[in-house]
Amino acid sequence: MFPGMAGLAQYRPETAGPLLDLAQVLLRGPSTLSPGERELIASYVSSLNKCTFTILSHSAFAAAQLEGGMPLVKQVHKDLDSAPIPDKLRALLRIAAAVQEGGQKVTADLADGARAAGASDLEIHDTVLIAAALSMFARYVDGLATSAPTDPAIYAVLADHVIAAGYNPNASVSSGRP
Amino acid sequence: MFPGMAGLAQYRPETAGPLLDLAQVLLRGPSTLSPGERELIASYVSSLNKCTFTILSHSAFAAAQLEGGMPLVKQVHKDLDSAPIPDKLRALLRIAAAVQEGGQKVTADLADGARAAGASDLEIHDTVLIAAALSMFARYVDGLATSAPTDPAIYAVLADHVIAAGYNPNASVSSGRP
Repeated sequence: MFPGMAGLAQYRPETAGPLLDLAQVLLRGPSTLSPGERELIASYVSSLNKCTFTILSHSAFAAAQLEGGMPLVKQVHKDLDSAPIPDKLRALLRIAAAVQEGGQKVTADLADGARAAGASDLEIHDTVLIAAALSMFARYVDGLATSAPTDPAIYAVLADHVIAAGYNPNASVSSGRP
Repeated sequence: MFPGMAGLAQYRPETAGPLLDLAQVLLRGPSTLSPGERELIASYVSSLNKCTFTILSHSAFAAAQLEGGMPLVKQVHKDLDSAPIPDKLRALLRIAAAVQEGGQKVTADLADGARAAGASDLEIHDTVLIAAALSMFARYVDGLATSAPTDPAIYAVLADHVIAAGYNPNASVSSGRP
């Protein structure tokens, strides 16, 4: 989350700290979901939010960390049902789409479907929170009308940066709490 | 944010740390908006989100810190245009309502209106982020179907706790970053 988030982080470092810590724990912290799978969830929710900055950044981050690269990311955004991904990930993406609409749209059937496809409760928890957090980030960067460059090369550079240094290289402590 | 958030914080302390740090900075950190005004914004967005837990908790937190108490909070939720609050706060609440719908709903007119009523850019920034964060918290607690007790006495106790100890009494460091 740089161009859009970078300006905001510079403007209000007190809030950027927890926001970037949250992104780091959710998208790059220890998890049974790979960073690529988690960025795919983030990019899919962003596509539903129609938020240019979060779509372009998280799609680039997902593409850089998934074997299928950008074509796979675009296939998922275009047609989740037919995209060549594991059923567990598809079921988690369906939960994420429900969260984007509203928390009450997450039905017991959706959660049961994810469990039947092999998702753990923690994976479901993290999927819900990733989707909720991306619904926040979209409102934040769009609500303040931050810039969103459209040159894919910029997001590829950001992806390298996030993969190498994480979301919050300035964090004074690890985000994990006992 | 306790019953709903307390269970989640216990289940996943790694994500609760940044989430509670964010609530602390936004709703109780140094600001030219009082904690009562900020909780009123949080409660108003929650009412638009129709999220029982965040409505009841942030309404109680606002009521405990505003002179008008719960009657004023309920008036704002019921009819923002006629509620007896300063014009600056009313203009910020209009921005918050737009953010709840979607970041792209925050028009230049809404921002200009808030500035004309005396709001600073930082107050507008924080209002957008409070509204965005509450849109995340609603999706998080509802998406995981956490409990939301309806006895107001419970939320009054939580309000005392948040006012006395803050949102994240276990934070190992201050959330502010240089």
